[in-house]
Amino acid sequence: PLCLCWALGLGPAAAAAPNILLLLMDDMGWGDLGAFGEPSKETPNLDQMAAEGMLFLDFYTANPLCSPSRAALLTGRLPVRNGFYTTNAHARNAYTPQDIVGGIQDSELLLPELLKKAGYINKIIGKWHLGHRPQFHPLKHGFDEWFGSPNCHFGPYDNREHPNIPVYRDWEMIGRYYEDFKIDLKTGEANLTQLYLQEALDFISKQQASQQPFFLYWAIDATHAPVYASKQFLGTSQRGLYGDAVREIDDSIGKILRHLQQLGISENTFVFFTSDNGAALISAPKQGGSNGPFLCGKQTTFEGGMREPAIAWWPGHIPAGGVSHQLGNVMDLFTTSLSLAGLQPPSDRQIDGIDLLPVILQGKLIDRPIFYYRGNEMMAVRVGLYKAHYWTWSNSWEEYGKGTDFCPGQSVSGVTTHTQEEHTHLPLLFHLGRDPGEKFPLSFASEEYQQAMERISGIVQQHKDTLVPGEPQLNVCDKAVMNWSPPGCEKLGKCLKVPESDPEKCSWPH
Amino acid sequence: PLCLCWALGLGPAAAAAPNILLLLMDDMGWGDLGAFGEPSKETPNLDQMAAEGMLFLDFYTANPLCSPSRAALLTGRLPVRNGFYTTNAHARNAYTPQDIVGGIQDSELLLPELLKKAGYINKIIGKWHLGHRPQFHPLKHGFDEWFGSPNCHFGPYDNREHPNIPVYRDWEMIGRYYEDFKIDLKTGEANLTQLYLQEALDFISKQQASQQPFFLYWAIDATHAPVYASKQFLGTSQRGLYGDAVREIDDSIGKILRHLQQLGISENTFVFFTSDNGAALISAPKQGGSNGPFLCGKQTTFEGGMREPAIAWWPGHIPAGGVSHQLGNVMDLFTTSLSLAGLQPPSDRQIDGIDLLPVILQGKLIDRPIFYYRGNEMMAVRVGLYKAHYWTWSNSWEEYGKGTDFCPGQSVSGVTTHTQEEHTHLPLLFHLGRDPGEKFPLSFASEEYQQAMERISGIVQQHKDTLVPGEPQLNVCDKAVMNWSPPGCEKLGKCLKVPESDPEKCSWPH
Repeated sequence: PLCLCWALGLGPAAAAAPNILLLLMDDMGWGDLGAFGEPSKETPNLDQMAAEGMLFLDFYTANPLCSPSRAALLTGRLPVRNGFYTTNAHARNAYTPQDIVGGIQDSELLLPELLKKAGYINKIIGKWHLGHRPQFHPLKHGFDEWFGSPNCHFGPYDNREHPNIPVYRDWEMIGRYYEDFKIDLKTGEANLTQLYLQEALDFISKQQASQQPFFLYWAIDATHAPVYASKQFLGTSQRGLYGDAVREIDDSIGKILRHLQQLGISENTFVFFTSDNGAALISAPKQGGSNGPFLCGKQTTFEGGMREPAIAWWPGHIPAGGVSHQLGNVMDLFTTSLSLAGLQPPSDRQIDGIDLLPVILQGKLIDRPIFYYRGNEMMAVRVGLYKAHYWTWSNSWEEYGKGTDFCPGQSVSGVTTHTQEEHTHLPLLFHLGRDPGEKFPLSFASEEYQQAMERISGIVQQHKDTLVPGEPQLNVCDKAVMNWSPPGCEKLGKCLKVPESDPEKCSWPH
Repeated sequence: PLCLCWALGLGPAAAAAPNILLLLMDDMGWGDLGAFGEPSKETPNLDQMAAEGMLFLDFYTANPLCSPSRAALLTGRLPVRNGFYTTNAHARNAYTPQDIVGGIQDSELLLPELLKKAGYINKIIGKWHLGHRPQFHPLKHGFDEWFGSPNCHFGPYDNREHPNIPVYRDWEMIGRYYEDFKIDLKTGEANLTQLYLQEALDFISKQQASQQPFFLYWAIDATHAPVYASKQFLGTSQRGLYGDAVREIDDSIGKILRHLQQLGISENTFVFFTSDNGAALISAPKQGGSNGPFLCGKQTTFEGGMREPAIAWWPGHIPAGGVSHQLGNVMDLFTTSLSLAGLQPPSDRQIDGIDLLPVILQGKLIDRPIFYYRGNEMMAVRVGLYKAHYWTWSNSWEEYGKGTDFCPGQSVSGVTTHTQEEHTHLPLLFHLGRDPGEKFPLSFASEEYQQAMERISGIVQQHKDTLVPGEPQLNVCDKAVMNWSPPGCEKLGKCLKVPESDPEKCSWPH
């Protein structure tokens, strides 16, 4: 049975459940903000948000790829539990392209579903990425409103082999990318971030007027290739088009925070900024961001693939200028949001997220590990300042030979390997304080290695012993499930012919 | 003839010449400060200094090695002009080990010599590194006081083949490293930073009491291998011993700035913080720092070797929270300091430093190139956001094979070369905004390449056409000139027997 309990006497949350605003970036890296050392320092609004709030320097995603990361955020559970992984091959990243058959299961409890019980109105703006078939629709999983798309905005497709990705308003599509929602692939011009901004401002205004608490999940995608920006931001960054996109996002977040302040609800709105995975270095330099001093990027379980920029902002509650070394994870946003709403997390299942409020409000540090998964494999674990790699892999020689490089300009012998290397009996150990770039493995013979691994081994053993993997949802692909005829297509005359079903095992090369 | 002119009506400088305090770090990298994105964020005082002053994100040294960098700072001139280079081999870094015969020439005009004419009392605390023979003594080149050593603090030596390095107070030595000034190489404990701090506080107090303007050159060395920290800081950093050293320096700089404030002279003291070259990645992770997202480190002309953390602080004059993208150089500290003192730079010689006061006080941006030299060769040049490499070299295969790696974990094909590669006819071009890590050279065929190189070529041509190299001072070594019997050794009974003179060409492998 599902237990939902009201937490009583828990301070600010008990007083009045605050609005919750999650600003989730797409493929933005740890090193992309001025506050995190990006040399062009072009994010004055985010830097100001950090100065007024709390900067998290050791915050992680649950997966180095988009769909599993987002499923983890919304369920508070590792992808290997919530089903957002594949068993088609060992240690493969998988996601939800438009031929994926699976998606978020009804058995999973999503954050907006739970927040509803506390009277929240929930909106998702932007990318859903938890499955695009009707049963996976966000409004079937707790959201009340949606403006955005179920899949990545790349394309354009030909509408014969691959349909262009639809953009939804609530239950129905209102157009398709490249047709009704333009992205100029040559110039990088698109006004989508402005649309997403206006949606956010309008929703906030509406909720403020109706005096109902809201959960807004602002999952925009301008920093995911193909990177885009509005005309007014094109060419304004030292960093090229990618920087233009960052500047527009930074400007938009500044407008959102000012809007909260102008409406007088900033002290009643908890805001958290982070990203779904590390910068996509395969798209660098024009279309990819920066992971600062960290190793490799998106798709990998090195720090560059999973360490994220993160800022908590809640004027009057979070002391300004705070800095936290709490090991955090996007899954914590699930548990923390429930806590803010005065709710307990479900007790009938394993929840991996922890409540960060004691960290954010009282400066506490909670001892907890971070697990770095790639598909069905726990590749690495962080405990304190130590990170142990049980498996290493960047990508295959075959993919590397084709020019796909997740670690351009970086190569650490025996670490950024192009074959899957097992180290389960003698993990590679790094001290992330002395060596944030994972370049200098500790000597196996050292006392430090022995002591650290003793503790880590126990934690890993317990994790593996108690792990009950979910049913993998990302194994089967079928072109018949693509976005041929989404709900609402008839009204627009945008229904496409559905081909015959031909289910097959999805191919996940990474 | 030497011309010294008083500048009139130049604003603050004309009103009352402010004190000048240069805080020069040793081998500290761009990425070592929290304000520059170091993930442990352990420099609250320096971060605060930046928040109260102006952060320079595009500030450079004149050379990727200590002695030439310091000679450039104090003369305002490139090492190839002031003689701090070698012609023993092509493109070799050289410095002043204790068997070097050369040093700073009398014909060079040093900043303290010039400041004297404006009534300044000048002190150097820490490492001199412009030659240790009697004629090169800092008190013969404009300084009034000295506490520190002429060479690097490494050792200990055996006092037979190599004498331990002396520590001077003014004209005479008062002891030697490892004998009278302890550094525990096993634990990293040494109280030297505390001694240097106390010297600074005492000097500032004395000058404030005597109402004489001062120039204090605080050239400490705790972040140069062997890295050290006082007992109270050992083990306090997430980053290990290197971080302990940084924390002690950060704490000390906080104390110095507070001391200025408590004495009521902070508004009359211009403070500038920077480093002599990039982090020494050969000493990482235990003894080396971080160059953040940049390529390679000390000894190289990649960004990691020459881009430096830099902060200007002058309450009441510099607007708080400023950020500048001015291309700056340690040589500018020469010209800027003269400007602060109301002096013009010498007009009888080429000065490479520019006056940064319009940048610092009025937010202006001055168009100027940055030249990246290694010994007698201009390896690269930066103009705007473009950097063109005319030569590439990390180090030789021979040295690399012995384990000397200036770019650990980094390797960019055709860029971090182990042979000296000439690109003078078709330079490798990078856009440092889009690609701060120098990983993606622009296509030679692109219009962008053509346009950028057209401008850059003209600047390089003019530079080369007008360059008059100085007499190289770092060609000859002789063990007879080592610190056997420095002045003052008799009183201490610390004179060592001077071996027979045997001058030879110094060997510079890098």
